[in-house]
Amino acid sequence: MVLGILGGGQLGRMLALAAHPLGVRCRFLDPAPDACAASVGEHLVAPFDDEGALARLAAGAAAVTWEFENVPVAALHRLGGRVPVLPGATSLAVSQDRFEEKQAFERAGFAVAPYHIASSLGELRGAVERVGTPGILKTRTGGYDGRGQARVDGAGDAERAWQALGGVPAIYERRIAFRRELALLGTRAGDGAIAFYAPVETVHREGILHTARAPAPDIDRATLLRAERHAAALLETLGHVGTFAIELFDDGETLLASEMAARVHNSGHWTIEGAETSQFENHVRAVLGLPLGDTATRGHAVTVNLVGAAPASEDVLAIPGAHLHLYGKQPRPRRKLGHVTLRVDAEDELDDRMARVLRLLRQ
Amino acid sequence: MVLGILGGGQLGRMLALAAHPLGVRCRFLDPAPDACAASVGEHLVAPFDDEGALARLAAGAAAVTWEFENVPVAALHRLGGRVPVLPGATSLAVSQDRFEEKQAFERAGFAVAPYHIASSLGELRGAVERVGTPGILKTRTGGYDGRGQARVDGAGDAERAWQALGGVPAIYERRIAFRRELALLGTRAGDGAIAFYAPVETVHREGILHTARAPAPDIDRATLLRAERHAAALLETLGHVGTFAIELFDDGETLLASEMAARVHNSGHWTIEGAETSQFENHVRAVLGLPLGDTATRGHAVTVNLVGAAPASEDVLAIPGAHLHLYGKQPRPRRKLGHVTLRVDAEDELDDRMARVLRLLRQ
Repeated sequence: MVLGILGGGQLGRMLALAAHPLGVRCRFLDPAPDACAASVGEHLVAPFDDEGALARLAAGAAAVTWEFENVPVAALHRLGGRVPVLPGATSLAVSQDRFEEKQAFERAGFAVAPYHIASSLGELRGAVERVGTPGILKTRTGGYDGRGQARVDGAGDAERAWQALGGVPAIYERRIAFRRELALLGTRAGDGAIAFYAPVETVHREGILHTARAPAPDIDRATLLRAERHAAALLETLGHVGTFAIELFDDGETLLASEMAARVHNSGHWTIEGAETSQFENHVRAVLGLPLGDTATRGHAVTVNLVGAAPASEDVLAIPGAHLHLYGKQPRPRRKLGHVTLRVDAEDELDDRMARVLRLLRQ
Repeated sequence: MVLGILGGGQLGRMLALAAHPLGVRCRFLDPAPDACAASVGEHLVAPFDDEGALARLAAGAAAVTWEFENVPVAALHRLGGRVPVLPGATSLAVSQDRFEEKQAFERAGFAVAPYHIASSLGELRGAVERVGTPGILKTRTGGYDGRGQARVDGAGDAERAWQALGGVPAIYERRIAFRRELALLGTRAGDGAIAFYAPVETVHREGILHTARAPAPDIDRATLLRAERHAAALLETLGHVGTFAIELFDDGETLLASEMAARVHNSGHWTIEGAETSQFENHVRAVLGLPLGDTATRGHAVTVNLVGAAPASEDVLAIPGAHLHLYGKQPRPRRKLGHVTLRVDAEDELDDRMARVLRLLRQ
């Protein structure tokens, strides 16, 4: 059985590693000749909108999915006539557009940071006045890992921020004085059933995920259930099938929805070792119509991203309970080269081992 | 980094799936064009003794290992000048020859079933008389999964058994009235350190592994430690580096060594989900000189082999805690097509779920 995947980065690579044991081979469409998923599947090197390549991607595939938000929605529409495409175009379109996304969050019942659309510099100036400062200007589309964002500390920063992003359609949003960031992950099956993973506490550095710890400590159960209910409403509206992640700000009282990934997500890499079934395997199961696997947590886990450089493998693997995941990518500043997940049975072992990984990163 | 592997069956496939996250790509040499590891690595299609193919296997590889016992020892010798070959030729030679293996078991302190070499029909007749019946005649080399064996229930069966195996050098061994079969698995690092996995209780059907359960219930600690000591002595003699499995008969009083696999082994597939680090990852770590991972057990696990036919994936995956591993092989009688591992936290959940898997196999 073949699963087509738009995008051939590390998420595609980990999808393929989870798919092989299910008897499923992955075929990737990615314009980058050095796409790191190529070593675990077939790789079609072509632009995402290449008609012939899309046909080859779909040929004989049981389904097509995507591992990258910035594929054109039109590609999904073109594929749609030939093969089931999951998650569908609605999930992709909403997660590509921060304005649509915010509106979808609100409709589903999530609290969000105050925001306003900013399609012009004039509109941005009005938005800053209405929403207040400090704030952050984000491009409506195309941003990830902290790209496509500019700070607005006072009203006088609006023009500089607008120019910094290249004068493209954006939204302006109030910066939240959050106590911490969380991520809510799960997988939604074709029949609408959702299997949630334990909530994750995330820490970002320069806009890039640095660590993800699960289960997140000290989460009020009622608050979590409310967030899961809102997530379920959102995903139902999208008709979403597959894994998803919703990033949240915890301001100490409320969880405010920040961003959504309508796909497998970096904040869920710990599920490979830390959950009974990983986010990758459950995504493959969902898009192929197979029953979802148990998402129960096994002990406690933390993932540390390897960004820009990776320590020597022997140093990482000498740390008890350390699981190394290298993506086979060439080092480059701000590039995600791999991650390390620590999994332990007793939560109090986690901090010490994480400190050892972090020490390696500083060397 | 590239790891060369002689053999491209399911063991090679699972080695490659464990190697990718460590940033290691596998290159297989296997004469079968449809070798199932080909979908997760590079595949050289050539005989194991093809000089040019061996050179291509070694080219740029950090090490070469093997996943199949019936590769010629000479191939390892030829590779040895070019690249580290682990486990070495001694491990391969001893595990290829049941007579050498028995002697190595005895020298290491293991009890074994009474046996005698049978290089001719005349010698077999003498062996049957000395060792007694019931017994089993096994070819010295080339046997696996119950092949190369013939029963000898009484002295009059000797000639029939001798002819049934084709009149090749063999050993005759007394059949043990065992209470159960066990397997002792672990990985030995280049520095001689051994990480043992929990002991496994195995059940065979028609000579092929049917189920493997870990940790094996009711093992006397002193008995286990004695077996581990003998195993350590054996592996030291061999200079073994990598994963190994020693199959044992438990007759209620003693553990008698039966066979050795000087490689990853079917009785250790449960380690993928049921141990902190799998037998496959630890084999890759050992042969590449990386630190071994923790072999601690996570809960309780049982692996059920899918032999000859595989049930529908959706039926397997609907069983809670079921992990499906298909090897991408065409169905054929007595062929191992995949396995299912059930992993649970509470041992008493295991029997019921295993019964569900076994029911699927009977359908």
